Amino acid sequence: MTDKFSLKSTYGIGVDIGGTKILVLIADDSGNVVLREKTKTSRDIDEIIDTVCSYIKKTGIPFQQIAGIGLGVPGRVNSRKGLALDSPALQWVNLELKVLFGKKLGLPIFVHNDVSLAVMGERWLGNGKNSDNIFYLAVGTGVGSAIITNGEIIEGFNFSAGEIGYFIDKNDIQEGRKNSFLDFGTFERKTSGTTLDEKGLEYGYSPPKLFEQYRSNNLKVIPIIKDFVLDISIAIANVISLINPEIVIIGGGVSESMGCVIEEIKSCVKNLNPIPTKIELSKLGGEAGAFGGIACVFEEVKKLKKSGG
Amino acid sequence: MTDKFSLKSTYGIGVDIGGTKILVLIADDSGNVVLREKTKTSRDIDEIIDTVCSYIKKTGIPFQQIAGIGLGVPGRVNSRKGLALDSPALQWVNLELKVLFGKKLGLPIFVHNDVSLAVMGERWLGNGKNSDNIFYLAVGTGVGSAIITNGEIIEGFNFSAGEIGYFIDKNDIQEGRKNSFLDFGTFERKTSGTTLDEKGLEYGYSPPKLFEQYRSNNLKVIPIIKDFVLDISIAIANVISLINPEIVIIGGGVSESMGCVIEEIKSCVKNLNPIPTKIELSKLGGEAGAFGGIACVFEEVKKLKKSGG
Repeated sequence: MTDKFSLKSTYGIGVDIGGTKILVLIADDSGNVVLREKTKTSRDIDEIIDTVCSYIKKTGIPFQQIAGIGLGVPGRVNSRKGLALDSPALQWVNLELKVLFGKKLGLPIFVHNDVSLAVMGERWLGNGKNSDNIFYLAVGTGVGSAIITNGEIIEGFNFSAGEIGYFIDKNDIQEGRKNSFLDFGTFERKTSGTTLDEKGLEYGYSPPKLFEQYRSNNLKVIPIIKDFVLDISIAIANVISLINPEIVIIGGGVSESMGCVIEEIKSCVKNLNPIPTKIELSKLGGEAGAFGGIACVFEEVKKLKKSGG
Repeated sequence: MTDKFSLKSTYGIGVDIGGTKILVLIADDSGNVVLREKTKTSRDIDEIIDTVCSYIKKTGIPFQQIAGIGLGVPGRVNSRKGLALDSPALQWVNLELKVLFGKKLGLPIFVHNDVSLAVMGERWLGNGKNSDNIFYLAVGTGVGSAIITNGEIIEGFNFSAGEIGYFIDKNDIQEGRKNSFLDFGTFERKTSGTTLDEKGLEYGYSPPKLFEQYRSNNLKVIPIIKDFVLDISIAIANVISLINPEIVIIGGGVSESMGCVIEEIKSCVKNLNPIPTKIELSKLGGEAGAFGGIACVFEEVKKLKKSGG
């Protein structure tokens, strides 16, 4: 197995724990992947740890050559404490992930919200390369976001930053739409994959098919996608006004079908906001979070080396 | 004059350069003010420096006891370089304030956008005391904002963060309202003092009078202020979704008349967004920026001491 890695290198592990599957990547500090595995999600933390452990063994890399593990969790995370505060998708509340993983594996563990991890991945190897000011919009089953400013992830006072699903406007209020905890937000209800699913159902189209039909000028589909493009563009324009990122990256499952509307979004945002800002689709796609886990491991290693630790 | 200050203390100077007037405060590191002066704005930088110099002499404090000067400028500022990038109100472009002030006064100079300085003032002595996550909304002639997250001011990639005046929604688009550089933004056109001025003119009311009449249930005025409250509340709710501040502080000239609507804004925001967030009017009012100038001087001194400089 020694052909898979160099004995001189160190490796990082990224574990993106999603609502339905877990993606594990092991790579060196240049992003060369030595292991890429996907498995079904478990809520049992010991089972997840055992799975990660078996993957490490599979690579043959000795534990001493592993710099750490970066974990991504859907939900609110206190990254300083390595604590999953609440993850409705996994039914976790105040779960001490850092302690549990660390105790069993004896490795440095870093825990972040999954979307925060995705933006770190894009900064390392994706479309936000080396930028200190990135906004990442995740359009998937739900809609979330993550922010890097001044080179740092913003978690917010209650670790709730990035909850763009709650964006609301006067029309929402006039039409009685509301935001409440544990429910889809007003913006999310307009732009998520779930909503596109529902809207496409009438015509028998999945979200990818909707975008395909839009490109083919299917008149029934055009208003659905036009609305989607406008809603997404308004939100991006407002984010730009507030935090002035260098680049906006659109990721998440739905973004994989958005190639045919990205130029439209760019030109719409440009019409809404005069601050010049790059807008791109995610480069790393569904692997952004797991790559971000590895990125945060190597960032911490760098910080430790700098401070002489 | 020695009764005015202790020889053991050091002092900071805050200079808030506005479009019409300059406010200068000199205080010790507990915020005890030894000088408070207001003068008409000048675009001539030498004149401003001479004025500040004459104020210092007036206090009798020796220059060695002054830790530095914090300057606030309306417009885009590169704080790292101490450069006023563009200030339409003062017709300054790429003005090297740090260099010019530093050369003439021989003191450490720190330059920030005026609203950024105001949020630093509120963090030091106002309603955001010791908070690392503050959103400051300035409602004055125009509407601006400033953000502290992770304990740091967000300037953004092009030093344009906080341009909340550009917030836009579907109604704006449908009704043909647009954002462009050097013009009032779509949100600003609904909520600024200038707009309240125009709306009040019809009835002969200034903005403070409008709020007074609202409190007295003047039926003509109620829709104007209700609209204002709703627009401000929606913007605050959306900011909370994105950056999750601990506290939202509303400052700027108009805020001085907003005591009668602050409870309404709190309850409206609470209805729009489930993330619990404090909302308060500015404590320092028109002096927040100048106090922020002093705050940033002492913060830099602390940093230097920490790093052994």
